[in-house]
Amino acid sequence: MVTPDQEETTPKGPRSPAENAELALLLEVAGTPKPGNVDRERDLEELWFEHFLAGAVGSRRGLKRAEAGAPVGAAFETAVAGMANQRGGNTQFGCLLLLVPLVRTAAAEGSVRPALATNTVEATTVEDAAGFYRAFDHVDVFVEDPPAALEPLDVRRGAAAIPALEERGVTLYDVMEASVPGDDIAREWVTGFDRSFRAAQWLESLEAQRPATDRVAQVFLRLLGERPDTLIASKHGEAIAQEVSDCAAELAGVDAFRTDRERVDTFADDLCERGINPGTTADITAAGIFIALERGGLEV
Amino acid sequence: MVTPDQEETTPKGPRSPAENAELALLLEVAGTPKPGNVDRERDLEELWFEHFLAGAVGSRRGLKRAEAGAPVGAAFETAVAGMANQRGGNTQFGCLLLLVPLVRTAAAEGSVRPALATNTVEATTVEDAAGFYRAFDHVDVFVEDPPAALEPLDVRRGAAAIPALEERGVTLYDVMEASVPGDDIAREWVTGFDRSFRAAQWLESLEAQRPATDRVAQVFLRLLGERPDTLIASKHGEAIAQEVSDCAAELAGVDAFRTDRERVDTFADDLCERGINPGTTADITAAGIFIALERGGLEV
Repeated sequence: MVTPDQEETTPKGPRSPAENAELALLLEVAGTPKPGNVDRERDLEELWFEHFLAGAVGSRRGLKRAEAGAPVGAAFETAVAGMANQRGGNTQFGCLLLLVPLVRTAAAEGSVRPALATNTVEATTVEDAAGFYRAFDHVDVFVEDPPAALEPLDVRRGAAAIPALEERGVTLYDVMEASVPGDDIAREWVTGFDRSFRAAQWLESLEAQRPATDRVAQVFLRLLGERPDTLIASKHGEAIAQEVSDCAAELAGVDAFRTDRERVDTFADDLCERGINPGTTADITAAGIFIALERGGLEV
Repeated sequence: MVTPDQEETTPKGPRSPAENAELALLLEVAGTPKPGNVDRERDLEELWFEHFLAGAVGSRRGLKRAEAGAPVGAAFETAVAGMANQRGGNTQFGCLLLLVPLVRTAAAEGSVRPALATNTVEATTVEDAAGFYRAFDHVDVFVEDPPAALEPLDVRRGAAAIPALEERGVTLYDVMEASVPGDDIAREWVTGFDRSFRAAQWLESLEAQRPATDRVAQVFLRLLGERPDTLIASKHGEAIAQEVSDCAAELAGVDAFRTDRERVDTFADDLCERGINPGTTADITAAGIFIALERGGLEV
């Protein structure tokens, strides 16, 4: 386990888990073209590349806390507070919800594997859930209305929901479990970070001659083609999420990133014009980058 | 003065000087088009955008040391060792030679002003010079041959030169003073960071409606037009450095970034084809971004 003081005394070691997580955030947003999202070559109207750079820099305080062994909820809240310290709004909330437990696992166990990550998330407590709810007070996150019975636990209530959490004894893992289906970040928590590890494997399988940012874009497209993006589904409905996923699957199937880049660019322009952002897919991409960096399968 | 522990206990404050310095490194490389250099839209043959992202992430350990009050030389060596922890080679050595004393000043004094920065660099010691020399052991930096009398102090000797430094009682400020003229990073040290503060002022004077990365590119072009780049002069000779500067001055004079973007792109293509990188200008741009972030004149 690495503490901030140890960082001072071992200044010349390789990148630590928190540093790899910050780099994963940066490589994720730099991957281009990532249809529908901000990337190295595209700013959206009010959400710019620089907001993601500042979000990554700000996140590191919380990522360091996770690395030092702080509870997942507290580290997550710190990471989100730092991430939100820029003018673009929510840039990397979902990424951090995956990265914080993965960083904690990597730092505590010396490696990151599905079973170890599952241990970390299953061990979360009611206090972790409280940290997660507090994080919503730092930034506006798009979420759907909960069922009426769960209204007292609506995440948009932020810290105000904590008494209800405590009364019901709800852990952060419970919160995530209740959010599946419909939230593929939560799905990662309850499936041993299934798609995150698959994304890492895909990244590691692509030849390393080209920039990592190219490989990131290819993996993003493949993930988007694998399952409809749950952020798109929440905002625009299942049908549109499915349509976008089908289109991505077709492009990924013919390796359009290499064979027909223009079609990928057209797809990207179309999504941006329609205001469709595959945010969940980007979050899982970032988690995959982190895992590949930690395993040494992705070198920068 | 902020220590790593205080960072833990004030996780929700604004960006600290070390964080602003890391963000400055990221915003500098993201500014586009920056003729001749890697930028958001351009990778060079063996030096890619991602190497600068990883260099910025790795630098932060040393920037944090400077923020916590460590001596300039030790903090600089740590920053360079972390920066070098990627496969692109030297990405931000010159930037860090400006940022480390500026971060130390901002953290110790609560603000960054020319006279305060001058106090910091004038107070450097022989031990700081030793740290600076040790930094050359972590990464290949392009430097010219020194005069014969100064061969024992050739920076390329790295730590091997330290006995000669100690024998002669040479401080880091002395090293910088001896490097002017011919090295405009060193010139910043002995002129109260003259051009860095001017770059900050220029950044702050541009309207904030457009992304900061646009403003960064405009300031880079203006700086390049103001004085020949000393890295270009070292590698390609004074005449070419002057020619490049004249061209940049002409483009900046007609605000070509806004009025005739194509000419800037042509200039950028030309420099890249000829392998001409205005590295010193990029370093001063990064220092200017840091100052503007610290003063609140550049908001992200």
